[in-house]
Amino acid sequence: MNSNRLIEVMQREGFDAVIATMPENVTYTSGFWAMSQWIRRGPQAYVLTPKPDAGEAAIITSTGIIDLAFENDVWVKDIYRYGSFFFDRAEGAKLNEQDTKILSLLEGDYDKDPVSALVRAIKDRKLENGRFGVDEIGIIPQNWDRLAAELPNATFIRAASAFRYARAIKTPEEISRLRRSAQIADLSIKAAIDVAAEGVTERELARVFHNTTINEGGEPVLGCVGCGTRSAMTNVQPSDYALKQGDIIRFDAGGRYRHYRADLARNAVLGEPTKKLREYHRAICVGLDRAIEMIRPGVRASDVFNACVETVRKEGLPHYQRSHVGHGIGLDGYDAPDIAPGNDAVFEEGMVICVETPYYELGFGGLQVEDTMAVTRDGVDSFMLTSTELRVV
Amino acid sequence: MNSNRLIEVMQREGFDAVIATMPENVTYTSGFWAMSQWIRRGPQAYVLTPKPDAGEAAIITSTGIIDLAFENDVWVKDIYRYGSFFFDRAEGAKLNEQDTKILSLLEGDYDKDPVSALVRAIKDRKLENGRFGVDEIGIIPQNWDRLAAELPNATFIRAASAFRYARAIKTPEEISRLRRSAQIADLSIKAAIDVAAEGVTERELARVFHNTTINEGGEPVLGCVGCGTRSAMTNVQPSDYALKQGDIIRFDAGGRYRHYRADLARNAVLGEPTKKLREYHRAICVGLDRAIEMIRPGVRASDVFNACVETVRKEGLPHYQRSHVGHGIGLDGYDAPDIAPGNDAVFEEGMVICVETPYYELGFGGLQVEDTMAVTRDGVDSFMLTSTELRVV
Repeated sequence: MNSNRLIEVMQREGFDAVIATMPENVTYTSGFWAMSQWIRRGPQAYVLTPKPDAGEAAIITSTGIIDLAFENDVWVKDIYRYGSFFFDRAEGAKLNEQDTKILSLLEGDYDKDPVSALVRAIKDRKLENGRFGVDEIGIIPQNWDRLAAELPNATFIRAASAFRYARAIKTPEEISRLRRSAQIADLSIKAAIDVAAEGVTERELARVFHNTTINEGGEPVLGCVGCGTRSAMTNVQPSDYALKQGDIIRFDAGGRYRHYRADLARNAVLGEPTKKLREYHRAICVGLDRAIEMIRPGVRASDVFNACVETVRKEGLPHYQRSHVGHGIGLDGYDAPDIAPGNDAVFEEGMVICVETPYYELGFGGLQVEDTMAVTRDGVDSFMLTSTELRVV
Repeated sequence: MNSNRLIEVMQREGFDAVIATMPENVTYTSGFWAMSQWIRRGPQAYVLTPKPDAGEAAIITSTGIIDLAFENDVWVKDIYRYGSFFFDRAEGAKLNEQDTKILSLLEGDYDKDPVSALVRAIKDRKLENGRFGVDEIGIIPQNWDRLAAELPNATFIRAASAFRYARAIKTPEEISRLRRSAQIADLSIKAAIDVAAEGVTERELARVFHNTTINEGGEPVLGCVGCGTRSAMTNVQPSDYALKQGDIIRFDAGGRYRHYRADLARNAVLGEPTKKLREYHRAICVGLDRAIEMIRPGVRASDVFNACVETVRKEGLPHYQRSHVGHGIGLDGYDAPDIAPGNDAVFEEGMVICVETPYYELGFGGLQVEDTMAVTRDGVDSFMLTSTELRVV
């Protein structure tokens, strides 16, 4: 977690504490992967992070997943649990550290529901009159109302944007996970294109892609794979369409590695590409290169957008139009900043970004190259193992 | 979609329309898999479903994913899009049906944001003075506030529970997908246990499990795999722990098939099981059988819970305690009903349920059997391909 950045935004907004409620922010502020809220909608887990010197951080979780709150990756140690759950204990067996911690927490009190547990954590820190920035995305509105009713002297402000601001600059550990995540996606696209041949279906390409991700230690998330004219559909989901000579293959895909997302795009073509295909693909690659070459701390996102689109147009796609040419990436697939027109945000050292120049032409196909990189002191550090070239298979 | 059931709850609550906002409910009421809201938190897609004779249903989606709104599975045809997105069109090329529909929608107007599009859909149906049941889980609170402000004569009621009520009884198509989803999980657990041997790690077992899921056409979601005493951790995530003689192996896992979830559990042991392990495992199996044998339309969930726990206790685990012994399953991993103490809900034909008897003993291990089945007119139709027996490998 980038705690400096979270403290900065807390000070700027005058928050005594922030409360994370969506899975990405809960994991971000504690290391706790609250499984049920990651794989479903509705289950409640929170992290209370007070400002410096206002008390230690606390995890609020259902008892059913407290084993995950004692994983090595979790740095927040004060845990408030709600709801009952039954564990037994083997008679006479010596318990390991994790089991001992689970058991010791189970011997203490628990609250009936997440709001009661959160209120207790707030009162334990004497913050009941405080001003709170609450991530409004993951808390169910009934719980927000109850929280406000139970702490009538506190102020609760919607603050999901404060977490997004903090998450934008990555720590070295985050950069290392994002690099590995991107490289897994890169290897997985390469492995899938390796099996491309006449008659191979989109589903088969997707299977090789996802299996490679799993074998490399990742988890599948995004898998848009389209062939032929189907590649022009932005979010094309793999079908039984079988590759024919001359078909474009477009991948826009990536999984997770230790919770961190990947999002890459590459193109291939089965057999000799047409002149149009080769020229259009070259244009989007040159545009991408232009964007990457400009990115360094202090440069405005909108300036990169404008130069990138301008370059694609000049290099052979005069009608090229886009609403953005990239975005940050982290625990969420779209972290700040958006590389979009009108976005005056500047790049900063430690951001990790995806830069992309997609082009979708119905009746022809979709072309897209997307790379991931960290912003360094004087430029970027690319995570990519393969080039953006149009692979001819 | 079980439209009868949704209409029933709309009539009971006096709703003129319901508005789905969380991914499961959007897909449920339209067939539209709004990818960005499935893989992230925050992106907004809605489905407006008026009561009978109050107008046709409408999808509200960002323009960036409208290709998915024209997939064959989508039965709601009136689409309101928000935000700009650029597609080109190949000169002279003959477009297929899907591309033609995308293009025709792109030629029409669009709204700036999801609330404006939703308000337009409501006004087009002359429902601006209506009473709406709104799924409160997926809509961001700022949008709820704006919706209420823009339609001051309408009433908006939190109604995620109405959707959960409707989803509890499955259609034949849903049962068929859930059966396949469960069978993919069943085959995947079997494939993973097939490779279990001394020195094989939890991660390796998980890899075989997920690869099999992908090869069978599913998508990985839940993968708790624990060996030895680690199997006692409820939500154990696969680690580098390597199997030793005598170790318990516990799987609690399942993916998705065509968006429908699976959730199954099985146990194995490496080498001869101890007497305690054999007896405890037998007790949870007999308890599970007792529950399954009781389930039929009209039987109360709490009665099944009580009989199940009682049976496990009598059959050799006298200290057995649980907070539930199962739950419905569908697009969400936990549909109604919960098979829990105090739940007076009765089973109904067409429900699909997971029945489970987990037992976690720290310092010893975790045992868990979980089957999935549909409730039929006079009992249940099990989806399982393997038995709950303790596999000795």
